[in-house]
Amino acid sequence: MPLDLNSDLGEGFGPWRMGDDAAMLDIVTSANIACGFHAGDPSIMRRTCELAVEKGVRIGAHVGYRDLVGFGRRDVGISPADLRDETTYQIGALAAFAQAAGDRVRYVKPHGALYHAASRDDALAEALLSAVADFELALLGPANTALDRAATAHNVPFYAEGFADRAYTADGSLAPRGVDGAVLAPDAAVAQANSLALSGTARTVDGPGTVAVSVASLCVHGDSPAAVEMARRIRVSLDDAGIPVQPFG
Amino acid sequence: MPLDLNSDLGEGFGPWRMGDDAAMLDIVTSANIACGFHAGDPSIMRRTCELAVEKGVRIGAHVGYRDLVGFGRRDVGISPADLRDETTYQIGALAAFAQAAGDRVRYVKPHGALYHAASRDDALAEALLSAVADFELALLGPANTALDRAATAHNVPFYAEGFADRAYTADGSLAPRGVDGAVLAPDAAVAQANSLALSGTARTVDGPGTVAVSVASLCVHGDSPAAVEMARRIRVSLDDAGIPVQPFG
Amino acid sequence: MPLDLNSDLGEGFGPWRMGDDAAMLDIVTSANIACGFHAGDPSIMRRTCELAVEKGVRIGAHVGYRDLVGFGRRDVGISPADLRDETTYQIGALAAFAQAAGDRVRYVKPHGALYHAASRDDALAEALLSAVADFELALLGPANTALDRAATAHNVPFYAEGFADRAYTADGSLAPRGVDGAVLAPDAAVAQANSLALSGTARTVDGPGTVAVSVASLCVHGDSPAAVEMARRIRVSLDDAGIPVQPFG
Amino acid sequence: MPLDLNSDLGEGFGPWRMGDDAAMLDIVTSANIACGFHAGDPSIMRRTCELAVEKGVRIGAHVGYRDLVGFGRRDVGISPADLRDETTYQIGALAAFAQAAGDRVRYVKPHGALYHAASRDDALAEALLSAVADFELALLGPANTALDRAATAHNVPFYAEGFADRAYTADGSLAPRGVDGAVLAPDAAVAQANSLALSGTARTVDGPGTVAVSVASLCVHGDSPAAVEMARRIRVSLDDAGIPVQPFG
Repeated sequence: MPLDLNSDLGEGFGPWRMGDDAAMLDIVTSANIACGFHAGDPSIMRRTCELAVEKGVRIGAHVGYRDLVGFGRRDVGISPADLRDETTYQIGALAAFAQAAGDRVRYVKPHGALYHAASRDDALAEALLSAVADFELALLGPANTALDRAATAHNVPFYAEGFADRAYTADGSLAPRGVDGAVLAPDAAVAQANSLALSGTARTVDGPGTVAVSVASLCVHGDSPAAVEMARRIRVSLDDAGIPVQPFG
Repeated sequence: MPLDLNSDLGEGFGPWRMGDDAAMLDIVTSANIACGFHAGDPSIMRRTCELAVEKGVRIGAHVGYRDLVGFGRRDVGISPADLRDETTYQIGALAAFAQAAGDRVRYVKPHGALYHAASRDDALAEALLSAVADFELALLGPANTALDRAATAHNVPFYAEGFADRAYTADGSLAPRGVDGAVLAPDAAVAQANSLALSGTARTVDGPGTVAVSVASLCVHGDSPAAVEMARRIRVSLDDAGIPVQPFG
Repeated sequence: MPLDLNSDLGEGFGPWRMGDDAAMLDIVTSANIACGFHAGDPSIMRRTCELAVEKGVRIGAHVGYRDLVGFGRRDVGISPADLRDETTYQIGALAAFAQAAGDRVRYVKPHGALYHAASRDDALAEALLSAVADFELALLGPANTALDRAATAHNVPFYAEGFADRAYTADGSLAPRGVDGAVLAPDAAVAQANSLALSGTARTVDGPGTVAVSVASLCVHGDSPAAVEMARRIRVSLDDAGIPVQPFG
Repeated sequence: MPLDLNSDLGEGFGPWRMGDDAAMLDIVTSANIACGFHAGDPSIMRRTCELAVEKGVRIGAHVGYRDLVGFGRRDVGISPADLRDETTYQIGALAAFAQAAGDRVRYVKPHGALYHAASRDDALAEALLSAVADFELALLGPANTALDRAATAHNVPFYAEGFADRAYTADGSLAPRGVDGAVLAPDAAVAQANSLALSGTARTVDGPGTVAVSVASLCVHGDSPAAVEMARRIRVSLDDAGIPVQPFG
């Protein structure tokens, strides 16, 4: 079974950079590109789209709350109507750069606090998907949440994302970060990437067994040299195991 | 000869409103809609696009400097490369709302200080047009400037805009605001609208004669009740004279 | 017993205005001046401080969430540490204008969603008050909340604000806006202003009786001509009843 | 003669960092702290003030244009009145953090494009100084410019800043960056720091001789590891030469 690798990219702003986008674009097959609300500015968006096209990486809109200083990691009590509008705005802005670079936006993945809020809250998920559904886009996000239900309701193709470095519980959900063993060490993360790809299973944090976890894409990070190295090890390990690493869908 | 009427619309932000957009959309045939940089927010952009589509008014992207507090009226020493990127961003954002409303963006008209800077400065005009040329769009702006030269160079259809309430000089350019008689009283403005439409001429501010002025669109304002009333008088007068008021191009 | 009237002022931004500040400064004795985060810009802050000093109105810092597009009315999941920092920043910015105008900031009143969040949440109230306590300032806000508890803990003088146009319940708290009769008509509001000032009581929304409500300041609004007129009627009525309308404390 | 070393600090924003502030605060004696307009946020401002106080470094307000994405390096066609207001705002915001940290702001140094514009333009310099003069502050900036003239006119103590790594011309001004030899290599920069401190002279870029350059403070940078290392070498060299490195004034 093929597997996609996705990463959050283009998350600088003005004079500030975050992570090593060029390195990550050699590793991943899908780029979640920030759209200017939680990070990203027009020049970074253009360059990131151009680089993604050059390297054959699929472009996704990484939409977030309008909260630069909080990097979109703080909840904002936005109304569903306003969330729909802010989502449309961000998709459109990125779409212009994707088109100028010779490609188009293929999917949306919400960022940070919006990712979590829209996973829990049906009204927010519904608002976000009603914006996504106006365009020919897929949704990348966590399975078994308000997000995939809303995607289904709007006939938006949904793709489940998983994490190599996060432990799963017996019911197939992520172990909360606070829990002992919730974050996997590099070797365990590489092993989990392979087991997710090869057998669709992960070892459970809360017991001896494994749990079935169906993911179309693994999220990897590039915001530190260590993170980039981890992402590269995962990519090499998947390649070595003969798993086709390619865009989902 | 048909004539277009255009107006700057959607120029509120958050809790603040500017002008009477609904009234103006009954008067004009082209709506220059703010894209969030000098004014406008995602919710206002959606509503303005929807209202424009409902009333059969053509949608244009009113791109401006990223300067909310200065309302895009202050010069910003932006590099041509950054101007290109900021233009692409704004066009894309508005395009998403136009598409969601069932139409598309048809043209770009720069706003405020950008309008003037890109009229004077070939590098800025070139940058702006290189962004416009990536999409199927026309440019609305002042004739005989860096803007129309750059439009021609990029094969972007250019449409000249004129002003009913501003006097012209013998060489066909606008009399600077400081000059005596540069701003016309309402009756004179209505008369000038008609002469521009019927004979392509305006009375000159600096002499007894008239000057040929070729305009595809007249810009009217809606930011005060008096401005809306003036715009309505011009529309009624054109209608009464049998001049087809319709989108340019 | 003297009574203070306070109002939210300086809530424009850039080209946009909100309310009639000049009119309100002839009515109120305390001006809650926006500090640039939910509204207000440096030029508006200077003018509003100067006008307040000219008219002998006390200056307060109306601190809010950094959320211009949402006008500070949306919850922001800010950490207490960040709230403390954002409060310090806003107090300092306004303090400079108050000093330049020949006076100083006397009190802080939180705005919108922050007002409500810090009334409910002890950690946010504690953070806000720890910023306030670094300066020689009072706090104006709702009684019997996390805010007045935190003020007491920090030895910050607390002054309770009440509302002329909002009904109270038998326990002395405000009836929620959704409840029948929660918002008083103008005549009833004027009557309530007088009863709050003269007898420290309000008629209860949920029964025939009255309830003791101790307020140091009444909040009046100026964001519409009707609101200004209502505020003026309250002021005139208090003056006519011989109630000294003067700054709290 | 004692010499001051100053550096631009606190120039991160939200999740983004710039430079190694902690290292630089062990090297310099004056900290130009960003005030939130071109860089800096309330939390960074508090931490930088606290660290400066802890290390005995003098606090200055590094005021800039409201242009986060351009890092204050782009010209903004701001009116003198607005510049005055934006300067007051930024000084006040930083003053609150300095006071909370147990100290106060001692001086103002304009940033980036504002530094250059206010050096050239008397109206901007006058506006900036009229804001500075409302508080008990000095001005740090380039000598023989509109800035020091305006400081003198406002009775604001002026301190001239120089550069170790920039060559001077025979008339004592900085050689423009484009000129051959305008930027000194590390060894030459260290030597120039010492000659500026010991003899008040610099070698000229355009001839064999030296020129008298009177500086109260040398500006050093900390935005890269190499820059920090250069600043440290300069500090060590001055210390070794027995030059007292201490705050100006």
